[in-house]
Amino acid sequence: MATHKLLLLPGDGIGTEVMAEVKRVVDWLDRRGLASFAIEEDLVGGAAYDSCGQPISEEAMAKAFAADAILLGAVGGPKWANVPYEARPEAGLLRLRKDLQLFANLRPAVCYPALADASSLKRELVEGLDVLIVRELTGGVYFGEPKTITNLLDGQKRAVDTQVYESYEIERIARVAFELARTRRNKVVSTEKHNVMKTGVLWKEVVSTVHGADYADVTLEHQLADSCGMQLVRAPKQFDVIVTDNLFGDILSDVAAMLTGSLGMLPSASLGAVEEISGKRRALYEPVHGAAPDIAGKGLANPIAMVGSLAMALRYSFGQIEAADRVEAAIAAVLAAGFRTNDIYSEGMTRVGTSGMGDALLAEL
Amino acid sequence: MATHKLLLLPGDGIGTEVMAEVKRVVDWLDRRGLASFAIEEDLVGGAAYDSCGQPISEEAMAKAFAADAILLGAVGGPKWANVPYEARPEAGLLRLRKDLQLFANLRPAVCYPALADASSLKRELVEGLDVLIVRELTGGVYFGEPKTITNLLDGQKRAVDTQVYESYEIERIARVAFELARTRRNKVVSTEKHNVMKTGVLWKEVVSTVHGADYADVTLEHQLADSCGMQLVRAPKQFDVIVTDNLFGDILSDVAAMLTGSLGMLPSASLGAVEEISGKRRALYEPVHGAAPDIAGKGLANPIAMVGSLAMALRYSFGQIEAADRVEAAIAAVLAAGFRTNDIYSEGMTRVGTSGMGDALLAEL
Ligand SMILES: CC(C)[C@H](C(=O)O)[C@@H](O)C(=O)O
Ligand SMILES: CC(C)[C@H](C(=O)O)[C@@H](O)C(=O)O
Repeated sequence: MATHKLLLLPGDGIGTEVMAEVKRVVDWLDRRGLASFAIEEDLVGGAAYDSCGQPISEEAMAKAFAADAILLGAVGGPKWANVPYEARPEAGLLRLRKDLQLFANLRPAVCYPALADASSLKRELVEGLDVLIVRELTGGVYFGEPKTITNLLDGQKRAVDTQVYESYEIERIARVAFELARTRRNKVVSTEKHNVMKTGVLWKEVVSTVHGADYADVTLEHQLADSCGMQLVRAPKQFDVIVTDNLFGDILSDVAAMLTGSLGMLPSASLGAVEEISGKRRALYEPVHGAAPDIAGKGLANPIAMVGSLAMALRYSFGQIEAADRVEAAIAAVLAAGFRTNDIYSEGMTRVGTSGMGDALLAEL
Repeated sequence: MATHKLLLLPGDGIGTEVMAEVKRVVDWLDRRGLASFAIEEDLVGGAAYDSCGQPISEEAMAKAFAADAILLGAVGGPKWANVPYEARPEAGLLRLRKDLQLFANLRPAVCYPALADASSLKRELVEGLDVLIVRELTGGVYFGEPKTITNLLDGQKRAVDTQVYESYEIERIARVAFELARTRRNKVVSTEKHNVMKTGVLWKEVVSTVHGADYADVTLEHQLADSCGMQLVRAPKQFDVIVTDNLFGDILSDVAAMLTGSLGMLPSASLGAVEEISGKRRALYEPVHGAAPDIAGKGLANPIAMVGSLAMALRYSFGQIEAADRVEAAIAAVLAAGFRTNDIYSEGMTRVGTSGMGDALLAEL
């Protein structure tokens, strides 16, 4: 069996707690001979800053380039509110995304039947919900230059951010969205603000062109970002795949995640291009949730999004379909058995903490 | 009684339909001697483009500068999908906002008790909801330069939008938010992406400084825009006033509006600075909803947001408190009596169209 190079970057806050549970699952898979890993671990975010003054070290970057897949916990927290902008925890994550060219961020928002009651929305609106947000992750306002703060006269300052998109960046993410839609319900909603932004004009134009040329069999609809946000709350089941830019994707995927009532449940994948010769693609897997400083260190975090991220890595990076199925079945089983961390708790269920949920998962594996 | 100069700009789509009902209310107030208006009317958006090739004519702009208040319906629609970018319908509205320096956009999201069941959210999450979004309206990515699309080699294009904020722009909108919070529940949430954007860094810094200097009695919390979007769905009643930039305000106010289950119900005010000598401030009032091309021309649109916008004008621009109360009481009364347009319909209520709702309102006045 091939040995897979897996890099673990627990990061900050609850990132370390949920990663601890993933390690137990990885150990279990290894012991059972279901998958074989060469595991490296390193720091990212505030933890890396505290250790080396940078939100990710050059060694960690080298390990990231060498890895077959990366699992990342979460970065950030109030402890680092005053570090220089370039060294803030998030810069470590952003560098990984950019330098590894992980342009396609897949964020599923799936409502588990057992959890429909935990949603803010009425049950009938979210039951069976299965939306996939495909977010562009290496461009837009996150990385465009200039990005500056300038001192003006009399204490005034002027801040500038720049959103830049070139056709090829939009085309490649559109292709990912259309390909994925074909494996699902064959519908793509493309979201931008073409009525206000030139990047929105180009976005809409390129998505339409790619659609007309190669994916006319997929249903395509354009929605303005404000109206998409509204539709996500009004009638989320109208969506199959949503493709959007880095910034809108950030906000809309959080709104979509919240609809499912299972924020601590949702994994994500950030993928690079398929390399010509090896057929491989770089990949980083992380929960949609953040470092959650308010509950960090208390053993309360839900590890399922992180464990689900491992399952995605098994499936998409390692081709270990059996192991991926096994892990996902264990997740479904613990939910069916009524185990709930705080974020998904509802009356009558069995309340557990992070390691309690880990125990339950291992028992089901 | 002073005569108030009111400019009506019905615009496109359902804009003209809902404005027709406002005119009936205005006539009624005039006839009863409750308020006295000098009314002008002109075109904006696609309607203006069709008539003069520009989304707002110079005459209409002159009337806007001369008016005490402007009521605007809505702009846009698929008919104008292919007009040049500078002449698209939205450009008329954006020019009004910018040239009149209407920097403070107030968007209340109020859940009327009679309508709580129309919300996508569970009743207990939205019953009594009263959030005010204070959106910066003359800066940010809407107006920053460069804003371009450039042709590159081999058919590729490069699009650029620029988000710019100077301290004074953030300071003045923060003051509006804090002042309004003092008349409400004394709490402001300021929303940006300081972990990714320099304008977010400056936004957070200026809001904190203004708070510390002059509004320490108001509770201030900072939330990242993605997490604010999530919190709006998770627990919207935590919010009193949300202050945010032009683009985040666009999306978050649509999400917030949707929560109330009454999108066709919500008015908004866009205000300029108070002028030193006259004590006046320029103002434009418009519904939060758009031109809704899908239902335009069918007599189905809900005119309440537009009539509510007139009430806001009476209150905030004309100081006609009695008339404003009268109009708002009529709105509450028709809802209590069970009249519902499609957008807010629920079982057992009396379904009416645009003019039917207008009839009901006039009957209650
Ligand atoms: C941590 C932060 C930089 C990040 C982002 O804004 O992309 C996060 O919100 C996310 O969605 O992954
Ligand atoms: C019509 C459009 C330009 C406008 C905006 O984006 O500001 C609208 O969505 C709004 O929120 O008033």
